[in-house]
Amino acid sequence: MKCVKCGQPAVINMRQHRLGLCAEHFLEWVPAQVERAIEKYEMFAPGERVLVAVSGGKDSLSLWDILLRLGYPAEGLYINLGIPHLEYSNVSQQKVEQFAAERGAAFRVVNVQGEYGQTIPEIARRKRGRTPCSTCGLVKRHILNQVARDGGYAVLATGHQLDDEVAVLFQNTLHWATGYLARQAPTLPASHPGLVRKVKPLIRLYEREMAAYALVRGIDYVYEECPYSRGATTLFYKSLLNQLEEASPGAKQSFYLSFLQARAEGHLLPEAASEVEMHPCSRCGQSTTAPGLCAFCRLWEMDGIDHGDTENTE
Amino acid sequence: MKCVKCGQPAVINMRQHRLGLCAEHFLEWVPAQVERAIEKYEMFAPGERVLVAVSGGKDSLSLWDILLRLGYPAEGLYINLGIPHLEYSNVSQQKVEQFAAERGAAFRVVNVQGEYGQTIPEIARRKRGRTPCSTCGLVKRHILNQVARDGGYAVLATGHQLDDEVAVLFQNTLHWATGYLARQAPTLPASHPGLVRKVKPLIRLYEREMAAYALVRGIDYVYEECPYSRGATTLFYKSLLNQLEEASPGAKQSFYLSFLQARAEGHLLPEAASEVEMHPCSRCGQSTTAPGLCAFCRLWEMDGIDHGDTENTE
Repeated sequence: MKCVKCGQPAVINMRQHRLGLCAEHFLEWVPAQVERAIEKYEMFAPGERVLVAVSGGKDSLSLWDILLRLGYPAEGLYINLGIPHLEYSNVSQQKVEQFAAERGAAFRVVNVQGEYGQTIPEIARRKRGRTPCSTCGLVKRHILNQVARDGGYAVLATGHQLDDEVAVLFQNTLHWATGYLARQAPTLPASHPGLVRKVKPLIRLYEREMAAYALVRGIDYVYEECPYSRGATTLFYKSLLNQLEEASPGAKQSFYLSFLQARAEGHLLPEAASEVEMHPCSRCGQSTTAPGLCAFCRLWEMDGIDHGDTENTE
Repeated sequence: MKCVKCGQPAVINMRQHRLGLCAEHFLEWVPAQVERAIEKYEMFAPGERVLVAVSGGKDSLSLWDILLRLGYPAEGLYINLGIPHLEYSNVSQQKVEQFAAERGAAFRVVNVQGEYGQTIPEIARRKRGRTPCSTCGLVKRHILNQVARDGGYAVLATGHQLDDEVAVLFQNTLHWATGYLARQAPTLPASHPGLVRKVKPLIRLYEREMAAYALVRGIDYVYEECPYSRGATTLFYKSLLNQLEEASPGAKQSFYLSFLQARAEGHLLPEAASEVEMHPCSRCGQSTTAPGLCAFCRLWEMDGIDHGDTENTE
């Protein structure tokens, strides 16, 4: 297989595009895909301050790298969740610090235990009905939004790539969760006071392309998945979707893009455009669907009971 | 595993219902499920004449058997498609004849070659752009509707079970084919002049339950799949869906039922209730979406070109 641009040996073959590229042209092609997504989905304009949520994994560090290469003023935010297994959170933080130091890039760290007194596993153990993963999602959403808002960033960017989005779409479709289906999007506007715009610039790229990008760019990232993600439903869905892609290259991308198109054309989800009523949380002020305390602030109530999220779950 | 009704050894365990049953109680339970579907989806009333499309396979013969056991005046219709491989169509016809003879049940046969001069494989070879499967679907839909209409039947029943419907739903969802999604239903009313009501009474039952029913009832059916179905996309989708069901019993049923529910509640497809404009075919009089000849009548035009179906594809 040869690079279609220069005829040198290809380092990657993207079957869904019938496209083989050498290292040099692949490192050009990936940022071009990201730029296309930023423009097409009106994610942000040049000069707008971007906060990148970085976990230390290949996707978010590659996203940060790409945005810097494209000239966007992208700063990082690492949330230390306090996951103790094999020093997972601390090792991840070191990867982020090293990445930022090599590039002289600005970044912030929020340590959940330092800031709120307990790690994610500790909160999950204390709250009945909360798994570590649901606690983690809630805490991250809250902190990401708060830091972006308080820091005056125009937009919060996350490293979700196409495989992540397709797995979520698949899960929501299997349950016909129409509320979630209505809100899943590459760009989520700041629809309520106190909520920042959220964007997924890697939406045109498959996970294996991001792994290849990190490898070819020499980005040193945490290889291990979070220890809590083992056996996660999402990983099972991804394996089913990979079988589909293997049989029919491009099937995952087509599933996602035809969903966006059918919804945009008004053939799907009549309520997609409808507003959810939101109120400011009486403690932290972030928008939440239920009056009173938001789900994040309820985490710190000492009754040990949690009746689930009521805040914006994007 | 024991039968939950009598404590005898169970012949089948239905994990999605957490239900084990012995042969006797399983043979009671299956028709009860069919009766529930007939009532819930308002398929037909006692006394209405039902035409059952029978292929000689386990699902359609079992459906016919069940409807007769439930006391419905169900007559069979076998369409001989002229598939020559291992005498597939003729062997299938013999199974249907034997089944009907054992029960003294009324049935009709339409031989496609005898009636129209060519077998399905011959038509497909003659028409560019037509596969045997698309030709077969078109011809069967036309003949089934015509015989039901001309014979004065109230309703046409087919042996589609839950696995069939889930595979079709999965395929339509992967492509977000909103037009097909809007029309897929257990009961399709006779929405236009010349179209009969179409129903799927096995909609509550998995394929493996139908196989078990045919086995326990001693129904002699054609085991082989149609020779053209090998490698069919539907079989691949069924294998993915079976992995899902294996990991989460009931997932297939839940995917289908939550789809029907979301659509019925108006959260999914704004156009589900909208009417498609239909015209009578200028030759055969059956309703079709395009003015002029319907897709079936165009099959017999000698230009060799076919631009696809325009008639109701249900």
